[in-house]
Amino acid sequence: MKHSVKDPHSDAFAARAAHVRESFSRQGAMGLIGASIVELRPGYCALAVVPRPELSQQHGYVHAGIVAALVDSAGGYAGLTRFPDNAAVLTVEFKINLLAPAKGDRLLAEGHVVKAGRSLVVTRGEVHAEAGKARTLVALMQQTLIVMHGKPEI
Amino acid sequence: MKHSVKDPHSDAFAARAAHVRESFSRQGAMGLIGASIVELRPGYCALAVVPRPELSQQHGYVHAGIVAALVDSAGGYAGLTRFPDNAAVLTVEFKINLLAPAKGDRLLAEGHVVKAGRSLVVTRGEVHAEAGKARTLVALMQQTLIVMHGKPEI
Amino acid sequence: MKHSVKDPHSDAFAARAAHVRESFSRQGAMGLIGASIVELRPGYCALAVVPRPELSQQHGYVHAGIVAALVDSAGGYAGLTRFPDNAAVLTVEFKINLLAPAKGDRLLAEGHVVKAGRSLVVTRGEVHAEAGKARTLVALMQQTLIVMHGKPEI
Amino acid sequence: MKHSVKDPHSDAFAARAAHVRESFSRQGAMGLIGASIVELRPGYCALAVVPRPELSQQHGYVHAGIVAALVDSAGGYAGLTRFPDNAAVLTVEFKINLLAPAKGDRLLAEGHVVKAGRSLVVTRGEVHAEAGKARTLVALMQQTLIVMHGKPEI
Repeated sequence: MKHSVKDPHSDAFAARAAHVRESFSRQGAMGLIGASIVELRPGYCALAVVPRPELSQQHGYVHAGIVAALVDSAGGYAGLTRFPDNAAVLTVEFKINLLAPAKGDRLLAEGHVVKAGRSLVVTRGEVHAEAGKARTLVALMQQTLIVMHGKPEI
Repeated sequence: MKHSVKDPHSDAFAARAAHVRESFSRQGAMGLIGASIVELRPGYCALAVVPRPELSQQHGYVHAGIVAALVDSAGGYAGLTRFPDNAAVLTVEFKINLLAPAKGDRLLAEGHVVKAGRSLVVTRGEVHAEAGKARTLVALMQQTLIVMHGKPEI
Repeated sequence: MKHSVKDPHSDAFAARAAHVRESFSRQGAMGLIGASIVELRPGYCALAVVPRPELSQQHGYVHAGIVAALVDSAGGYAGLTRFPDNAAVLTVEFKINLLAPAKGDRLLAEGHVVKAGRSLVVTRGEVHAEAGKARTLVALMQQTLIVMHGKPEI
Repeated sequence: MKHSVKDPHSDAFAARAAHVRESFSRQGAMGLIGASIVELRPGYCALAVVPRPELSQQHGYVHAGIVAALVDSAGGYAGLTRFPDNAAVLTVEFKINLLAPAKGDRLLAEGHVVKAGRSLVVTRGEVHAEAGKARTLVALMQQTLIVMHGKPEI
């Protein structure tokens, strides 16, 4: 028999996740590059984009800057899953290493919170290129976010 | 009387600049975000973009990732101005600090070569937001490029 | 009955590890700060230092620069474990986030190779402060190394 | 005739500079590596160290980590020159590129404030190696500091 009692933790996160999705939907830049949310968990966000010519650099691969935009957002929303309701997120800085050509069927950018302080949150991120069953690590990121208390995200 | 003798240095750079512009025109991502080349000099490249809703983050400013894409390209093309003809440029890594909201009439991203080695080139970059006569520093970048000898850029 | 047949992989790494230890012993700076090698595995290096007043910043914690020196070396030697014999390692660049005061009985810096290319190697590193049984993450690092082929490390 | 009227701006900075020197003198790590303050101005700090075997990496040059420690401190004290009295400075993160072997008669690390916000300060830094009259750029840094209001530096 299935319990009808709801998990209060899941419920609390469902509200938080809706908040993150609403913020994401307002990012014109994520719409422009065609990014979508693949998964949200507390302290974790995965975003994906499908490579296409409009995202390319001069050799046809996805531009390092687009890869950076994707994983910066993944890190930022990983952070936002852990913020209080009445707070917005801004990127203070990030650093990215590009490891392999970004190409294939899909790019998956994952951000995860490593340290959540009261005002600063540090995340790491990875971007993989998926082609059929192959999966290649294409970028590594490390990021600092700031929590803007009293400035609601949406 | 105007001399008809051409400046060989300028001529050499004119060819190099044409090479850079050709590479830039192949970057679908720069077309997508609406970036254009403002200036090219040996070791220097300035790119601009006009803020619009499609480039925004959730609060309406230009997305940190778009700012990063712009200044990554400015740094990369600053580097390419100094490369030999038969070599391509790739970003190894970069780090960016976001200092102020990216908004206004125009974002101007400047990249300049600090150290040009045989295989690695290090650049710095700055992004300013221009609004009327006001000019605000919105981002600082430091970047490592790799020279791909024997792999023509275009 | 114990086999007398040696594991060729282990033997190969033993030689490599001896090479790394020899290089480490030549780093005056590691001697000055009192660092020692805790563990070496292929693609991994752990170094430790005991906090003392000579390593401090102004509030008595271990100086961010000393933490950086330790984890830079851990990443570099993680990389060197994967290099061919006739090659030296140099740090191209690294980025470090400081997350908590570096204090306690021991600082343990771990470096691990994420991507080993022919000429560039990318590592990540973490530093934990150990106090009794408590273990606190104090720093996160991301690093690019260059393989100097034909320039023996020692 | 020389005016005896004091410059109030200089006086104010003299107190601030004394504060910075007092903090610097408490950094055991700067004493250990033999660093000294060469110059302090509002938003600027220059530190120097003389290369010696105790600061070396495996090839005899000054260790990247020592170069990093020096320029991290230069950036931090550049920031502290601009802080209010009742505030301490901590490094949030920094990124450094190593450009050339750190050797010669003296290493000079300069840090300068690029953006001083209320809670975060961003600096850039450069390290030059001086040998006779030659001066070689050996490292580039970009750094984020946090202002700890209400926690006096000394």
